[in-house]
Amino acid sequence: MVGYTDDKDAVLTRLRRIEGQVRGIQRMVDEDTYCIDVLTQISATTRALQSVALALLDDHLDHCVRQAIAAGGPEADDKVAEASAAIARLVRS
Amino acid sequence: MVGYTDDKDAVLTRLRRIEGQVRGIQRMVDEDTYCIDVLTQISATTRALQSVALALLDDHLDHCVRQAIAAGGPEADDKVAEASAAIARLVRS
Amino acid sequence: MVGYTDDKDAVLTRLRRIEGQVRGIQRMVDEDTYCIDVLTQISATTRALQSVALALLDDHLDHCVRQAIAAGGPEADDKVAEASAAIARLVRS
Amino acid sequence: MVGYTDDKDAVLTRLRRIEGQVRGIQRMVDEDTYCIDVLTQISATTRALQSVALALLDDHLDHCVRQAIAAGGPEADDKVAEASAAIARLVRS
Repeated sequence: MVGYTDDKDAVLTRLRRIEGQVRGIQRMVDEDTYCIDVLTQISATTRALQSVALALLDDHLDHCVRQAIAAGGPEADDKVAEASAAIARLVRS
Repeated sequence: MVGYTDDKDAVLTRLRRIEGQVRGIQRMVDEDTYCIDVLTQISATTRALQSVALALLDDHLDHCVRQAIAAGGPEADDKVAEASAAIARLVRS
Repeated sequence: MVGYTDDKDAVLTRLRRIEGQVRGIQRMVDEDTYCIDVLTQISATTRALQSVALALLDDHLDHCVRQAIAAGGPEADDKVAEASAAIARLVRS
Repeated sequence: MVGYTDDKDAVLTRLRRIEGQVRGIQRMVDEDTYCIDVLTQISATTRALQSVALALLDDHLDHCVRQAIAAGGPEADDKVAEASAAIARLVRS
């Protein structure tokens, strides 16, 4: 089981909307839309992707990491280290 | 005419690949892939989107902004201000 | 007790180096150093600050959040929510 | 001459405030302030640094890049390429 199972439909809905935004950006480029307007749409899509990432990370901390810590044992160390590495990738992307 | 006309096919190819990445993320969520792996894929997609934005901005500076400045007149002020605002949105997204 | 107590000296050393970088940027501006070189130095300083933030967050997850979860009770919920909010601020800054 | 000469005092004032913020963060760590509060202060300082970078870049586009383009010649190419590289570093930091 993974942390986002409960919110799976909501996450999928957000990802489908992001897919639609990316297709919209393709259409804008294809129709020679003014660059600045394309950039505005890319910034909005980037922020939407980051929001999904933050929601998944939140669930991950609240479920997987939490269960591993509550269960004790060496897996807790791994989970915390893994979450920290994922956070670093998000902050730097 | 807009700045990215020459590179239009290359930009569209990159955007179609990003659309494929977003669909891949949906599939991962749908199949209950481990959250951290989903996050890694989202970080990669975010970076790919930012690279397209930087390429578009580069072309924009090199074509639209440059032409407006070379032509002189009040439009040059607008173009520079508009580019600065787009850069700020990118840095903050 | 807070999570970073063990690494306090290392964190303080990094923050003093960042303070030195900020003073170096002031000197560059004061001496009319070429803008692009000042920007390069600001980008390096921003990354150094983010690295300290990631190190503190890592320790926080590994100590404060972990202890709260291991202890059980309602405080665990608060700690996880609070860490998620701090991560969101970092990703968006 | 560089682009930010006119605003030099304003930029220096902002950088001195950022130096004060970094010293404040050192004090917080030294006094074992709660990690989340330290992180909030680091996020604010990172944003302040990025704002200075955006202001410098804005001036740079509006002065150095603009003058090079208006003057024509090969230096214009270099200035635009250099500005694009600086923008990429800012977006990725």
